Amino acid sequence: MKTKKFLERLKVEVDTYMDKLLPPDTVYPSVIHEAMRYSIFAGGKRIRPILLLVCYQATGGKEIEKVMPFACALELIHTYSLIHDDLPVMDNDDLRRGKPTCHKVFGEAIAILAGDGLFSHAYYLMTLTDVNKKRLLEAIKIISNAIGSLGIVGGQTMDIKMKGERPDPKTLRYIHSRKTACFISASCEIGGILAGTSRKKREALRKGGLYLGMAFQIVDDLLDVIGDEKKVGKRLRKDKDKVTYPALYGVNGSRFRAKAYTELAIKNFQKLGEASDKLVEISKYLEQRMF
Amino acid sequence: MKTKKFLERLKVEVDTYMDKLLPPDTVYPSVIHEAMRYSIFAGGKRIRPILLLVCYQATGGKEIEKVMPFACALELIHTYSLIHDDLPVMDNDDLRRGKPTCHKVFGEAIAILAGDGLFSHAYYLMTLTDVNKKRLLEAIKIISNAIGSLGIVGGQTMDIKMKGERPDPKTLRYIHSRKTACFISASCEIGGILAGTSRKKREALRKGGLYLGMAFQIVDDLLDVIGDEKKVGKRLRKDKDKVTYPALYGVNGSRFRAKAYTELAIKNFQKLGEASDKLVEISKYLEQRMF
Repeated sequence: MKTKKFLERLKVEVDTYMDKLLPPDTVYPSVIHEAMRYSIFAGGKRIRPILLLVCYQATGGKEIEKVMPFACALELIHTYSLIHDDLPVMDNDDLRRGKPTCHKVFGEAIAILAGDGLFSHAYYLMTLTDVNKKRLLEAIKIISNAIGSLGIVGGQTMDIKMKGERPDPKTLRYIHSRKTACFISASCEIGGILAGTSRKKREALRKGGLYLGMAFQIVDDLLDVIGDEKKVGKRLRKDKDKVTYPALYGVNGSRFRAKAYTELAIKNFQKLGEASDKLVEISKYLEQRMF
Repeated sequence: MKTKKFLERLKVEVDTYMDKLLPPDTVYPSVIHEAMRYSIFAGGKRIRPILLLVCYQATGGKEIEKVMPFACALELIHTYSLIHDDLPVMDNDDLRRGKPTCHKVFGEAIAILAGDGLFSHAYYLMTLTDVNKKRLLEAIKIISNAIGSLGIVGGQTMDIKMKGERPDPKTLRYIHSRKTACFISASCEIGGILAGTSRKKREALRKGGLYLGMAFQIVDDLLDVIGDEKKVGKRLRKDKDKVTYPALYGVNGSRFRAKAYTELAIKNFQKLGEASDKLVEISKYLEQRMF
């Protein structure tokens, strides 16, 4: 309960900043700003910005407001990737975060452009981050790598290519690590980079984030099979023709793997010592989540 | 002829760097790297990278190879925006730079992802630029603004929205300035920023680039009406239902305006003194171009 409240409080803080940092929907051309804001504020747990903030603090970062633009940028990037993934030619989803997807409300052309607009604006926000410039550029490099063709885009490419194919463990691991884990790992690592932490702690965050991301995606797969559509906020039982953990290992085998990855994540985070308490709590909480 | 040769030489140099800086198409998942490379190397004049390099040199920049990653990043961004613009739900173009468009060869899903992959990789390349970090972050801010919802994405949004509508001068100017001129302006300004030029010269580049960009787009509109499809490399006479200069001002009125904008560009560039010679030549050359 304590963790849930903590996450909710941080989510509200991130949302407040995003509201300030996004162009108002009155700005011309208003339709594109409406679409960008619609998808951002349609819900979402803000896990990536929160992980950045928690890792920043866990490695000695003191002034959260200075790294808020970067934290928000992560959510803009995450939302852009969801908008594009939901398109009819991709996963063809009509429900996301409990609301109709961007292209359902604004049409496909505006949805593609809203994604592109969030993408560009994310990088604009990164440049507003008020930290040492060498650290900031290193963080921009890490995120750009995590979301490109060697990261998210690569994962989504294979996800699309494998639709209807028989899943194999290696490809499944590739897709999950690239679609989800790389980004969550980068969010954690960047928290440390912006705080100017040591190479050793940075590595602990990177690895911990990678395992946490794997666990997170496996739980996501599980929720598609056993979750409540209203709580999860997206159309479920849709992954039938997709490469997922339950398809390959069943519900119990997937639960087991989510637990094992979470334990690996915690083991890495604990290299930070006491400062890792919040990260450990969040890792456990995410494994148990039902939405 | 001299200018043409100069541009061709620089284009070859930019292409050589891009070939080195893009992941090889053997890198897994190969289809996405094939698609990214296909669209990049399908042709193109490399005007934006060339303008960055020429402006960098015109403001005292000495080591071109240090800013090459940023120059190449501009072409990656330009190509990403072309791939998305060409999609069936956008402008529905099947020919670009003389070859079938990305989605015609790889399908729509991979085309969207190839655009996203080029977008991310562009920012990765920017971080490799070997200049003073403050300058580099300023340049990243300028480009992110120019390509977002207040720039390219905003222009494309209105272009889509106005399809089939009666054009009015104000909207037409908005679309052209945002879709094309802002980006060309940023390419020029960034050349100056990376060289560490004065505020005054930077402003001359920004304004000169803006006027040059307007002229460039008007000539592009004109080529759609009077150009030779083989030379221009894209399907022509397709702009009939779009808001263009010839539609509003006719061929002669558009020629007149392209000339006027070019003169304004030159007047601004000449504030750099003798160092502006190459920029002036290029401006004149682009106004006269037939492809």
